[in-house]
Amino acid sequence: MREDHQDAVQRVDAARLWKRHMDMAQIGAIPGNGVNRAAFSAEDIRARHLLVSWARARNFSVSMDTIGNLFVRRPGLESDAPPVMSGSHMDSQPRGGRFDGMYGVLAALEALEAIDEAGVKTRRSIELVAWSNEEGGRFAPCTMGSAVYTGARSLDEIISVTDNEGIVLKDALAQTLAALPDARARAFNAPAAAYVEAHIEQGPLLEMQGKTVGVVTGIQGLRWFNIEVSGKTDHAGTTPLALRKDAFRAAVDIINALRELTHDPADVLRFTVGRVLVTPNSPNSVASHVLFSVDIRHPDVATIRGLGEAVEPLARKAAGVCEVKVTPTLHDDPCVFDTDVVNTIEQAANTLAVPNMRLPSGASHDANYMARVCPTGMIFVPCEKGVSHNEAENAKPEDLAAGARVLTATLLDLANR
Amino acid sequence: MREDHQDAVQRVDAARLWKRHMDMAQIGAIPGNGVNRAAFSAEDIRARHLLVSWARARNFSVSMDTIGNLFVRRPGLESDAPPVMSGSHMDSQPRGGRFDGMYGVLAALEALEAIDEAGVKTRRSIELVAWSNEEGGRFAPCTMGSAVYTGARSLDEIISVTDNEGIVLKDALAQTLAALPDARARAFNAPAAAYVEAHIEQGPLLEMQGKTVGVVTGIQGLRWFNIEVSGKTDHAGTTPLALRKDAFRAAVDIINALRELTHDPADVLRFTVGRVLVTPNSPNSVASHVLFSVDIRHPDVATIRGLGEAVEPLARKAAGVCEVKVTPTLHDDPCVFDTDVVNTIEQAANTLAVPNMRLPSGASHDANYMARVCPTGMIFVPCEKGVSHNEAENAKPEDLAAGARVLTATLLDLANR
Repeated sequence: MREDHQDAVQRVDAARLWKRHMDMAQIGAIPGNGVNRAAFSAEDIRARHLLVSWARARNFSVSMDTIGNLFVRRPGLESDAPPVMSGSHMDSQPRGGRFDGMYGVLAALEALEAIDEAGVKTRRSIELVAWSNEEGGRFAPCTMGSAVYTGARSLDEIISVTDNEGIVLKDALAQTLAALPDARARAFNAPAAAYVEAHIEQGPLLEMQGKTVGVVTGIQGLRWFNIEVSGKTDHAGTTPLALRKDAFRAAVDIINALRELTHDPADVLRFTVGRVLVTPNSPNSVASHVLFSVDIRHPDVATIRGLGEAVEPLARKAAGVCEVKVTPTLHDDPCVFDTDVVNTIEQAANTLAVPNMRLPSGASHDANYMARVCPTGMIFVPCEKGVSHNEAENAKPEDLAAGARVLTATLLDLANR
Repeated sequence: MREDHQDAVQRVDAARLWKRHMDMAQIGAIPGNGVNRAAFSAEDIRARHLLVSWARARNFSVSMDTIGNLFVRRPGLESDAPPVMSGSHMDSQPRGGRFDGMYGVLAALEALEAIDEAGVKTRRSIELVAWSNEEGGRFAPCTMGSAVYTGARSLDEIISVTDNEGIVLKDALAQTLAALPDARARAFNAPAAAYVEAHIEQGPLLEMQGKTVGVVTGIQGLRWFNIEVSGKTDHAGTTPLALRKDAFRAAVDIINALRELTHDPADVLRFTVGRVLVTPNSPNSVASHVLFSVDIRHPDVATIRGLGEAVEPLARKAAGVCEVKVTPTLHDDPCVFDTDVVNTIEQAANTLAVPNMRLPSGASHDANYMARVCPTGMIFVPCEKGVSHNEAENAKPEDLAAGARVLTATLLDLANR
């Protein structure tokens, strides 16, 4: 590593990074160390103001696009070259934690500051981005800012959605944009050289393996289905089993078959039945109808496609005398991150002697959309017991700093190519 | 069969019996040929008045006890000898049918009338009984009249229960008793020589086997449990299966084990999981908690006891990493009907060349309580597709009449012992 890069990495300040998390955590604080910071809310605007104040203190330039994505730029020597971008989101789940999203924003800011303090000149500009409304807890769909920015969704298609109180996104967004009148206008989908997102893992693997940094290889693919089983209700005392059309029994048969289908000794595949609705749901009545959800995830595209295609025929076969309706409700192929970016992150971690491992992301992220438009990677840091989307979400200051150091080294490398 | 008994049996009038069902079905009629005749309601009182008017037209004596059970007596030669009793109930489920309960009352009335028309003198009196509140749809618990009559429950213990509108049983019962001022007072649990209850099967076996009469051998035993499985909610995308405490997965494991435990190639055992509640019940969250009901029934006492005792240890074993709580919620040992009464019914059916089969009752009945105090049996007739507790409940006039003929022959036989 170049000496000036080493200097920059060493200027990553664990205490400053932690304090900024704690300052941000006061905005929308809820009991139990949690955060409720809905997208385009007063709290979201306060978080934006705080981020901008830190950026302006460094004379970094601030811009914003029309979906409210906020950009903080440290210019490079070649101001016209596509920048290297890094960031995440500042909104939270209604009962969210202090690190989900916010870490990626503050780690990018920490990198910019460390690089600035070290006086390193980069060829490309480095740009922090705080994506709007990643969580989707107030206005659906989630990952809204990155989806609109990258052109995966149009602003028109989502501008009229309302929150639970009837507030239209258009109005909440307008308030947010108006609250930052000094931010320069920014176009969607400006060319980027690379995008690197830091994030808490939201899973237990790093903690279990004793690793400080996860080199994320991609985002696993996902198939969601609703499976509806229709039978016939009967008196539980009088109807022999052979004469029943027991929808719950058939549902269990289908679930058993899906468990066989998805059995994975390597424990990479994720299979979850999380939602089950039984009708009439009475102890002495055979179920006439059952609806259950199926969630299957895997990082390999051929595997997830094969599994996805197997669900319906398998459910039909296992349903026996009952009828079955299989409705796909969500369909994402795996996202495989750019080999160069992944290798760069891994090399940075190894150079800095930060214990690391490769792993796919179990959850989706804004990086999923950025990967469609530029070379992309992610850096994970451990979170306590893998808990997120919960007030109890927690992370260690030294892990957050280690991740920020790997991010700094990675951004410097990418910005000088 | 004695000639005068043959005469009486031949006087069973299919048309009269059917018309009485249709007359009764107008009291509390609901769309779709259904009946809503709650216990101790205005409709119940109208049904009692109609029954009493038919009884008085024959000069049968009418009496009533303090829980409102209504008795219609045709005296025998030895008026002090314990009578032979027969009946069922006139109340219905909120969306009930025209035959459940009412058939047993009207078949007993038909038997009394046929015997009376034939001028047969019996040694013992024959007494029709219309039990109060068998369904328990308005005032819990069910089979109230027969339970209080036989001493299984005290009047005090149930007199203060209220219906959904806050009406106290005591007041509704007082109105019912006051509506029949001419009924003579009747003590609880007067000695009886035998009790025979006619009823629709409420199951599909007779129809499937092409039999007109079921000779009921007893009422199967029953064990109800609530099984609560506690695990831990996790992100469906990020948590490897080996690290989960998936309460729904454990519930399916327990259900699979219970299915093995209860597997019965003879298809006599009934096993039902009819109620399932999953928490948080979200597609992308591993279930933290599942509650499900278990309903196991079998006519053999050793079998049902063995099964009942096996449930908890088996659930604990199958629950794996999750915790499990097993709560017994209902516990009835099988009722085995009196051999003599069962044989008498079967012989009557054979003598009358009525196609018949032995079978246990899947549902409970007032006969369950009477069997504790005197020799008891039941006669089933087919109901369409086994449907009951439903407006669509249906039966054929000729089947109802055949059952009444078997009942008449049986009562005559028993009343002359």
